[in-house]
Amino acid sequence: MRTISWSDSEGGRIILFDQTRLPLEMVEINVSTHDQLIDAIKRLAIRGAPALGVAGALGVALIMRNSERAGWSVVDRDQAIAELRSARPTAVNLAWGVDQVRPLIASGSGAVLERALEIASADAAANRAMGALGADAIELLIPGKQLRLLTHCNTGALATTDWGTALGVIRELHDRGRVEEVFADETRPLLQGSRLTAWELSQLKIPYRILPDGAAASALFAGLIDAVLIGADRIARNGDSANKIGSLAVAVAAHAANVPFFVVAPESTVDRSLADGSQIEIEFRSDSEVTHFAGVATAPLGSRTYNPAFDVTPARYITAVITEQRLYRVSEGETL
Amino acid sequence: MRTISWSDSEGGRIILFDQTRLPLEMVEINVSTHDQLIDAIKRLAIRGAPALGVAGALGVALIMRNSERAGWSVVDRDQAIAELRSARPTAVNLAWGVDQVRPLIASGSGAVLERALEIASADAAANRAMGALGADAIELLIPGKQLRLLTHCNTGALATTDWGTALGVIRELHDRGRVEEVFADETRPLLQGSRLTAWELSQLKIPYRILPDGAAASALFAGLIDAVLIGADRIARNGDSANKIGSLAVAVAAHAANVPFFVVAPESTVDRSLADGSQIEIEFRSDSEVTHFAGVATAPLGSRTYNPAFDVTPARYITAVITEQRLYRVSEGETL
Repeated sequence: MRTISWSDSEGGRIILFDQTRLPLEMVEINVSTHDQLIDAIKRLAIRGAPALGVAGALGVALIMRNSERAGWSVVDRDQAIAELRSARPTAVNLAWGVDQVRPLIASGSGAVLERALEIASADAAANRAMGALGADAIELLIPGKQLRLLTHCNTGALATTDWGTALGVIRELHDRGRVEEVFADETRPLLQGSRLTAWELSQLKIPYRILPDGAAASALFAGLIDAVLIGADRIARNGDSANKIGSLAVAVAAHAANVPFFVVAPESTVDRSLADGSQIEIEFRSDSEVTHFAGVATAPLGSRTYNPAFDVTPARYITAVITEQRLYRVSEGETL
Repeated sequence: MRTISWSDSEGGRIILFDQTRLPLEMVEINVSTHDQLIDAIKRLAIRGAPALGVAGALGVALIMRNSERAGWSVVDRDQAIAELRSARPTAVNLAWGVDQVRPLIASGSGAVLERALEIASADAAANRAMGALGADAIELLIPGKQLRLLTHCNTGALATTDWGTALGVIRELHDRGRVEEVFADETRPLLQGSRLTAWELSQLKIPYRILPDGAAASALFAGLIDAVLIGADRIARNGDSANKIGSLAVAVAAHAANVPFFVVAPESTVDRSLADGSQIEIEFRSDSEVTHFAGVATAPLGSRTYNPAFDVTPARYITAVITEQRLYRVSEGETL
């Protein structure tokens, strides 16, 4: 199973693993147009900042193939690329992936595809590197005991091309024999924790429990957690980190309970154009994500919601940001 | 609609409003045995600390009626009362309600029933009193603006015999023309916020939004909330307060965002035998509350969970505890 990959069959396809169907079934989607890709991104069939970076790059390759075959105008081609680039606003990686291959457009679809596949390979390598760096840091900080680690949302292989970011550190610690148990926040409203992270952990045979997001503070205050590890969708220069809604609550509780809190993400998630998190655009999603479940109404008809997809954790609550290159002690004032 | 009431028909019945069926339908349950009542309490058809107090008192009246009619032994009768008293461990009110009528057992079912009905009336009056006290306190603290108030779980008429505790303060503020909007945490895993609080607010035509529990910190940090009001299931002498899981996370975030945080509950919720919250027994509930929704699996089969029904908010995060008698400034060291 690969989260996202390229197939040269039938003139070029992107193959996605439909994450909305987990844990009930494993379904592949065959994407042959940019409209299909944008739809898959918007309905979260593919999600996770690093995976979206690869989707952006491969998406431009797909647009180039279709454009060359059908003889699109430059305006139509660039319009398709712009729509893909802005399909979701908060994760910087989607735009980053598009921007990485854009300079190669003049060289044709072959050059774009080659660069996109390099980005996918580099993402997998970056994940392994940050997994090792993060595991080293945590082993140093918390020596000589089996670790109980809390995570939020999904940052595993499903969120990347391979291995994972925050969950990649947990996998590395598990491979080193250091993990007692993972506490996986279910992550409302779309349950990426219980549907995706728990599924990955069960496949990997890493012991885990699922908890309601509101129970994380209880676990932290009860002394059940040694460290928290989460991913990020956009990180400002000072370390303020946008991540899945609910991350901020966990960070504040971890800080109050004196439990170290790590953000693990590739350098491509760092947006050095932003001095701090106040300028990060937050995507708001539909009421029905909160008011309905599996087609059943869980609230009075017509209820309005407050449903931001992300929140921003201030750097002061983040022990360190860990990338494939290094560890930044942002709560101590270090910048990226 | 009354949350819980007594009917003298057919030798005596307790009439409950089945809260597990909201917001989809309004269903009454006719309870004629203590086993039925305990089942209704355990599956949360009736819940909320003050309502459980009345259920405890009326439940003893029901047991007395059945015992007198069928000629139970004293051992069997007392066994039934003991089972009712411990049907749920965290909310002190259930045991309190039983204990209030116990001294009258020797006087027969009539005396017990009379006292139980007095407790129900007193609860309604206490709710109105704490509503007025709480509204006064908030008007004094936050003068001259329309209020945006956040609440967690359900503390309205459905959690009491009438009116509500924390939601009762909000209703009183609404009657005074001071409420702009209520932010109702959905309250996983059982969604008492979106199913019950939103339903009450929609019936009362008070503007509201539902939010995932993890989004409360985002709303607090974004300056969207003027005050937080929650209920309690047991309050220790120093003000540490057990309440629905997720309350602690909201309290810590409110404290960090400098937003006042109030606990509103009747004096019957205060357990003065406990010096602090560390001795409060926390009820843990089944995995399936977290891993399934409406019969659909939302997690891999066999997943374990961390599913405490309550957490304990330390007094230092609580601006004040408000009862029907007075306001206790527990974060400043005042005790109950």
